[in-house]
Amino acid sequence: MNIRPIGIIRTPYKDPKKVPIQGKFESSIKGRIELFPKYQPGLKDIEGFSHLILIYYFHRAKKEKILAQPFLEDETHGIFAIRSPIRPNHIGISIVKLEKVADNVITFSEVDILDRTPLLDIKPFISYYDSRKNVKNGWLDKHFEKGKLPKKLRKLLK
Amino acid sequence: MNIRPIGIIRTPYKDPKKVPIQGKFESSIKGRIELFPKYQPGLKDIEGFSHLILIYYFHRAKKEKILAQPFLEDETHGIFAIRSPIRPNHIGISIVKLEKVADNVITFSEVDILDRTPLLDIKPFISYYDSRKNVKNGWLDKHFEKGKLPKKLRKLLK
Repeated sequence: MNIRPIGIIRTPYKDPKKVPIQGKFESSIKGRIELFPKYQPGLKDIEGFSHLILIYYFHRAKKEKILAQPFLEDETHGIFAIRSPIRPNHIGISIVKLEKVADNVITFSEVDILDRTPLLDIKPFISYYDSRKNVKNGWLDKHFEKGKLPKKLRKLLK
Repeated sequence: MNIRPIGIIRTPYKDPKKVPIQGKFESSIKGRIELFPKYQPGLKDIEGFSHLILIYYFHRAKKEKILAQPFLEDETHGIFAIRSPIRPNHIGISIVKLEKVADNVITFSEVDILDRTPLLDIKPFISYYDSRKNVKNGWLDKHFEKGKLPKKLRKLLK
């Protein structure tokens, strides 16, 4: 497998402990993708999309665990039932909101990514393909009862 | 970056030309993940989720293009504005429907993945994190007008 960075993600988050668990809940912060110039033609027509899926490498994750505890609770779950960075392969995904494209730089909001994260791919978020109805969210459903954000998350956003 | 397969995806699709463009539209077909046994403990609590995000390597994509034509139309777009496999890094994602977990094997539906695809990661699909409202879908919106599937797609599903 020939996998290498195609650009660098720049964000205000320098400290892993201060990155929000999901950018969707912290919409005022902005980040940018600095795509390596050779890939710039690949951005043609991307400005028509409101949201992008970024696939990147958790470069600051040094451990790899098979069971871990998520931010929202003290219970331990299998690593494939949570979104923790300390997973096999250290691959992360984020859905971000596209704000602006200028040459090889994409500005975006809904940021939950550490500064200087190596970018592996950009895909358009396509509601016809990527939305699902009647979703069961395993151990998370109890934390989001009645459509409210979990208390632990609301505290962070204050 | 230490990226390697964590399992193999088995599906009825042996021919790249016959894989549906999105599994969501072809719900009767089933596939399975054969996770390498050392990762099996990472599946703890995954059965509570109805949908999973699979990240995998497009092992049959031999080319890499920066502009390409999607299935739905004859226009050429930047590779980051379409979901084609012939993208830098050949990384694919699919949202699939979890059917059953037994030891290290996950059976799923909503399949759009080629047989023997190397699996890189499994993440739980979390509606609270992964859904977006007011999405603009760039060049695709004209194909899905009034919520109908594009004619080219309906023909395939017949």
